[in-house]
Amino acid sequence: MHTINIAEKLGSFTDHWSPKIIAELNGQEVKLAKFQGAFDWHSHTDADELFYVLDGAFTMEFRDRVVNVPQGHMIVVPKGVEHRPVAKEECSVMLFEPKGVVNTGDNESSEHTTDAEWIA
Amino acid sequence: MHTINIAEKLGSFTDHWSPKIIAELNGQEVKLAKFQGAFDWHSHTDADELFYVLDGAFTMEFRDRVVNVPQGHMIVVPKGVEHRPVAKEECSVMLFEPKGVVNTGDNESSEHTTDAEWIA
Repeated sequence: MHTINIAEKLGSFTDHWSPKIIAELNGQEVKLAKFQGAFDWHSHTDADELFYVLDGAFTMEFRDRVVNVPQGHMIVVPKGVEHRPVAKEECSVMLFEPKGVVNTGDNESSEHTTDAEWIA
Repeated sequence: MHTINIAEKLGSFTDHWSPKIIAELNGQEVKLAKFQGAFDWHSHTDADELFYVLDGAFTMEFRDRVVNVPQGHMIVVPKGVEHRPVAKEECSVMLFEPKGVVNTGDNESSEHTTDAEWIA
């Protein structure tokens, strides 16, 4: 039984749009990711997705609106809703979502598609 | 589609050991709570429980060890494991656990037992 140091985990990687798994519970995963630039439009058929901003800020684009998500705020994107995160400057985010969710969802041919990996 | 401001939510209540629900996704709930003093020994038969320290620090007591959980750290308590959070000074915590988990788990006769409520 140990604690997970979020700052230490964030300091252990530099790549963007590549979520790292830091915890698993109840079939869900907690991940950390760094955003910079524009991601792909996508949705997740079976998974709601939570984004909690640890450092910086990003905008979550939806087909009908844009929502600014600053540091210390979170947003839940319901399953099936198309979205695209965009970060003008680098932003660090904590994600909560079901185990095995792929970052680009139904957009499987994206250059951004990657499996999340555990970081020590 | 809106963001959830964690500082604003934390500022909206003062009671201890009474988790407030701020988000729901995938059958799980995100809650905020303030700890001060010693809670009850308990476990959750069917729920792993995540504690993420937003402000302050607390210690998680287990039957065979004590783990300090400072600000910016998280700890996952697996289902079935007896634990008791203790905070010498007030501590603000984010919880992530299945919907409907009762704060005192199998210790149903505690004075601390309370249903979590949504805060606006």
